[in-house]
Amino acid sequence: MRLCFTTAAIAALLLPAAALADEGMWLPSQLPEIETAMRGAGFQGDPANLSDLSRPPMSAVVSLGGCTASFVSPQGLVVTNHHCAHGAIQLNSTPENNLIVNGFNAATMADEVSAGPGARVLVTDRFERITDRILADARGKTGRAYHDAVEAASKAAVAECEAEPGYRCSVADMYYGTDFHLVRQLELKDIRLAYAPPDAIGSYGDEIDNFMWPRHSGDFTFYRAYVGPDGLPAAYSPDNVPYRPAAWLEVSTDPLAEGDFAMLAGYPGRTFRHRTAAEFADQVEWQLPSRVELMDALLAAVERGSAGDADAEVRYAAQVAGLKNTLKRAQGELDGLRRSDAVAGRRHEEAVMSEWLAGQPDAAATRADIAAAQEVIAEARATRERDQLFAMLGGRTQLLRGAMQLQRLALERGKPDAGREPGYQLRDEARIEAALKQAQRRYAPAVERAILTELLARHRALPAAQRVPEVEAVFGTDAAATEAALVALYSDTALAAEEERLRLLAADPAEVQASADPLMGAAATLLQAELRFEDEDKARAGELLRLRPAYMRGMIGHARSQGRAVYPDANSTLRVSYGRISSLQPRDAVSWSPLTTVEGIVEKHTGVDPFDAPAPLLAAIARRDFGATVDPGLGTQTVNFLTNLDTTGGNSGSPVMDARGRLVGLNFDSNWEAVSASWKFDPRYKRAIHVDARYMRWIMARVYPAPQLLREMGLPLDQADRQRPAAAAGR
Amino acid sequence: MRLCFTTAAIAALLLPAAALADEGMWLPSQLPEIETAMRGAGFQGDPANLSDLSRPPMSAVVSLGGCTASFVSPQGLVVTNHHCAHGAIQLNSTPENNLIVNGFNAATMADEVSAGPGARVLVTDRFERITDRILADARGKTGRAYHDAVEAASKAAVAECEAEPGYRCSVADMYYGTDFHLVRQLELKDIRLAYAPPDAIGSYGDEIDNFMWPRHSGDFTFYRAYVGPDGLPAAYSPDNVPYRPAAWLEVSTDPLAEGDFAMLAGYPGRTFRHRTAAEFADQVEWQLPSRVELMDALLAAVERGSAGDADAEVRYAAQVAGLKNTLKRAQGELDGLRRSDAVAGRRHEEAVMSEWLAGQPDAAATRADIAAAQEVIAEARATRERDQLFAMLGGRTQLLRGAMQLQRLALERGKPDAGREPGYQLRDEARIEAALKQAQRRYAPAVERAILTELLARHRALPAAQRVPEVEAVFGTDAAATEAALVALYSDTALAAEEERLRLLAADPAEVQASADPLMGAAATLLQAELRFEDEDKARAGELLRLRPAYMRGMIGHARSQGRAVYPDANSTLRVSYGRISSLQPRDAVSWSPLTTVEGIVEKHTGVDPFDAPAPLLAAIARRDFGATVDPGLGTQTVNFLTNLDTTGGNSGSPVMDARGRLVGLNFDSNWEAVSASWKFDPRYKRAIHVDARYMRWIMARVYPAPQLLREMGLPLDQADRQRPAAAAGR
Repeated sequence: MRLCFTTAAIAALLLPAAALADEGMWLPSQLPEIETAMRGAGFQGDPANLSDLSRPPMSAVVSLGGCTASFVSPQGLVVTNHHCAHGAIQLNSTPENNLIVNGFNAATMADEVSAGPGARVLVTDRFERITDRILADARGKTGRAYHDAVEAASKAAVAECEAEPGYRCSVADMYYGTDFHLVRQLELKDIRLAYAPPDAIGSYGDEIDNFMWPRHSGDFTFYRAYVGPDGLPAAYSPDNVPYRPAAWLEVSTDPLAEGDFAMLAGYPGRTFRHRTAAEFADQVEWQLPSRVELMDALLAAVERGSAGDADAEVRYAAQVAGLKNTLKRAQGELDGLRRSDAVAGRRHEEAVMSEWLAGQPDAAATRADIAAAQEVIAEARATRERDQLFAMLGGRTQLLRGAMQLQRLALERGKPDAGREPGYQLRDEARIEAALKQAQRRYAPAVERAILTELLARHRALPAAQRVPEVEAVFGTDAAATEAALVALYSDTALAAEEERLRLLAADPAEVQASADPLMGAAATLLQAELRFEDEDKARAGELLRLRPAYMRGMIGHARSQGRAVYPDANSTLRVSYGRISSLQPRDAVSWSPLTTVEGIVEKHTGVDPFDAPAPLLAAIARRDFGATVDPGLGTQTVNFLTNLDTTGGNSGSPVMDARGRLVGLNFDSNWEAVSASWKFDPRYKRAIHVDARYMRWIMARVYPAPQLLREMGLPLDQADRQRPAAAAGR
Repeated sequence: MRLCFTTAAIAALLLPAAALADEGMWLPSQLPEIETAMRGAGFQGDPANLSDLSRPPMSAVVSLGGCTASFVSPQGLVVTNHHCAHGAIQLNSTPENNLIVNGFNAATMADEVSAGPGARVLVTDRFERITDRILADARGKTGRAYHDAVEAASKAAVAECEAEPGYRCSVADMYYGTDFHLVRQLELKDIRLAYAPPDAIGSYGDEIDNFMWPRHSGDFTFYRAYVGPDGLPAAYSPDNVPYRPAAWLEVSTDPLAEGDFAMLAGYPGRTFRHRTAAEFADQVEWQLPSRVELMDALLAAVERGSAGDADAEVRYAAQVAGLKNTLKRAQGELDGLRRSDAVAGRRHEEAVMSEWLAGQPDAAATRADIAAAQEVIAEARATRERDQLFAMLGGRTQLLRGAMQLQRLALERGKPDAGREPGYQLRDEARIEAALKQAQRRYAPAVERAILTELLARHRALPAAQRVPEVEAVFGTDAAATEAALVALYSDTALAAEEERLRLLAADPAEVQASADPLMGAAATLLQAELRFEDEDKARAGELLRLRPAYMRGMIGHARSQGRAVYPDANSTLRVSYGRISSLQPRDAVSWSPLTTVEGIVEKHTGVDPFDAPAPLLAAIARRDFGATVDPGLGTQTVNFLTNLDTTGGNSGSPVMDARGRLVGLNFDSNWEAVSASWKFDPRYKRAIHVDARYMRWIMARVYPAPQLLREMGLPLDQADRQRPAAAAGR
């Protein structure tokens, strides 16, 4: 076998081990294994302490469900990103006191306000390997049966765990079916807002600066978790008392500088770094380019459908923004994966693993399973064009999506709630109702027809083996038939009326399924295809759950033979990443330093949102009123900093800690060059963007003073008690 | 008197002298005066050699009229920017061989093609102080008489100088009337194109990268100057022979690095750095902001006038682009001058000078003249709103401008050509005809009326003292009258027809002046105002020519008392600037290194103009086929570099030289942060952008080979004789 690499790929492979060693979203339990590398990078604590979720500092790191946060006082004070608390801030805003604009500062605990009935702080307190239990019944099975056995065992383990009140439990799949862990989280339900800077600080730069460096956002907010007087989780009540966490992070008062050790803990959502080379190639060579091309075509279809109709343009503005965003992100990911030569790199890793595996005793079964897994993956690829188009029929329409949801719900309602398809359970019905209502503001018949005309033309152009009989039954097999079908469906349907959609939502399932509305009939036909594809998917998912562990054993075995540990792909469980404060060379002749300063706020300030720095902030900068938080090297106040820590969605709000585990910042974003990192960590380009804890302290000491919280965190007040304009005094 | 400064201004004032010493567009004759500073910066030659325009290297630096160039061989080979030679390249392009796309490479001198009858190479060979002669007759006069006496003496000196055939002469005013120099230039008229890279190299990045760093343009082209067989300047003839210059620059073969000494010679057009603090304040506080506001209003007027009329939108596309460009540039200049706190800085300099002057003996007359100059400047400011609006009436319209030009030309044609107002002489008539024809494609009545409605509403809002009686006579004094006048003028005029405009251009002046066309009548009335304002302007210009020298004496005298030399503002005469290869920190946390590399070409390449790098270039980069031109530190091929040299418009094509006077690059642009440098050189932000001579050499050795030119310049061929695709082989 002959392997070919571009120079970029070879350069990436030849990078010094020290640079690569920083990559990784490690399970806390793995940290003792990588102790040498961590110490080499500058870590000064004992990794064994980090591996125990029930002890500090790990037990201080909590999930908000989607975001990460951490306890910073013994009285349940929690710090997270401003953008993670946006809903709570909005909820408590009134026309008289818009907290988004003014910020919020509870003078005493009694002034703290509820973050809402859905707000949660989840404290992970158990993380237990239960692989044998989960796989016991699956062994010997294949396909859909294997999938169902794993699912049933997982549900049973969760139910048993949640039998004890106050906990939320889940089963986490590590290394794609190789290992299963039971995760238990204490579910705190009375969460209150304690402090938020104005939005013009918390999201300074907003969408324009999103993914950008240099950055100047004060993206932090403080919550406090409360429990019932008995110390157990409870819904909001005035009688509740602050939760007393087992651990909280100490906020550092030391300066930061380029090269300093940094680490981060949090709940990253999903990565794909252990996917096969064939999946990498599919992503780079087909998924992303075809997504870009299809989004472009759908944008053109929306434009055609709304040409000369200002009302339709307004109705589709959100969808157009969504299509553009999907397109931009896909293009960015594609550019990044190409720049990193990710496919060639993965092929090389796989080839090296295969060669190693060939020399191992008793590896025949592993090799056979890997080959079988590759087969299943190749098989899925055979229908990728069909799958992409079919998903768009419901995904990018309003009335047709509504009809399909109504038919699916009618079907699912015939099952016990626990047996319903996720997305169609009781708890999802409010969301479905909201979507059916929203369609009223987001629908124009000519645009929906233009979108479907585009999608159906593409469907007709598919090879015969990929064409969907149900789609052909509804929309015909040539352009004229499609046009006639669309005209008939959309002129005769009553679904354009909100009351009719809501009537069907409330109607008896049998009535829905028997509906004479032509669009409801079309949806019933299309539902048959949807169910068939889902069934095929689950069978394939089962096979991959059975076979991928062989691939992972090969990869992990080869890495171990070289003394390297392997972290599992992100799956919303608690992970630790370590690295350092790092500059970035994003392009030829351009260099970004890793610390931004308040001077950049003034440079960007235009007075117009999102660059409308509040007057108290500008005044404090002009006074150079920095006190103890001034950076000794730069002689000014820092704002954000850049590290090479390994992050992805879900890491928002993650505490960034120094070599001794003290809080030095909060993660809140990545750079655009790193948008492809969910597949490939390229140390040349992957950076994470953090709020400097010194900026938080400065804002709370000198700009919108909260001396009570500084005191609670044991931080120096730094003359913060001097009379200053209060946060609520406006901008 | 109490002076107040912002911190930025104080920081600028406190900059180390070493950084400030680099500022300056020095007359070659001043260089011996600043020898210590130049040597301190790293210059290794004798500044006295640079001060003699008849000797190398200065005699090698030539003007193309608008651009700068330099001789680089004893056979009249000239190097300048690709963008300076764009007209010549276009002129020689055919449908079969588009030189813009393909580039051009004359295999032998016989293959060189004419750059056109208007192309010039101007070799400055005399630069003589004639202040006494110019001012002899002016002394004792004031105002308009002073102006006319200086103008008459200048014209006489030029006529006497040009009596010798083959020369173009001019009188250069240094320090605003303080000193006058006679400049004599040999006028070479047979200029031929020898070598040009494809446009996709020569202007890689084009408008998108304009003013931007990092930059990746191969902005160079070679001309050759020819003379008659007698060695004298002559128009193109096949019998002509290459001009043998007295001097030519040696091209360096040494590497470049940050911090290296660099100097540049050329013909910078115009700067305003010695203007008074009041003029600085007027620029920052009124001229630029009001220009931004007015351009914005005119853009809105064009939009109103062309709403729903696609044809009108097309007709005004060029004007809209022009308005936007003017707005963007004014905003950039304004931002820059504010960032540099230019007004406070200039006020400080003036206050220090005044204080010094107060302590000088016999300075009473100087002080009185300075006070009188300030009066004249303040007086001009009293009508600035009127002057800005009046200039727009002709400046931003098509038919009205045409009518005003026809009336003015009819008036001027009554004078001997030399006595006509510049812009209305015989040589200008072809340009006026072209503009009258062009109006056909750029005019829509509704848009012109919308523009005039906007301008006239603003005129009506002026204080009474600024309102123009002639404007009121034509357009009335209230909105209704203006609207009625516009309707009448534009519905009854025949000028919308091209043939009528051209008929009037050819007609007898008396007939034009008596024209019954309402727009021609309006123009005749407005012309009276125009002439009156011009007369006032000239009287004021005469007074300032008389009085400003006192201000300059104060500034120069104070500087001398501190051991500092003062360079005159740029006026298209030969100047020298020295400094070093310099990085730039344009914004918080962003740093630009001073050398770009071919890797940046690949990064920017999209395949779509202006980022469509030609295949031979991409192939040579992929081969890493750099040879002797590789940068030893970076290990790759450099493209452009950045210095802190002092440049402005007119410096395009200027040779950049090393400490020993050898050519290391060509100047071709500035950075956007320096757009305000024509008023204020801020060493933190002012940079100049150059093509690295090593990139030129590499392109000519390895990409589009021209071994004959490398040999002629005495450069190593570097295996360039190896078979390579020729330039004309396409991309």
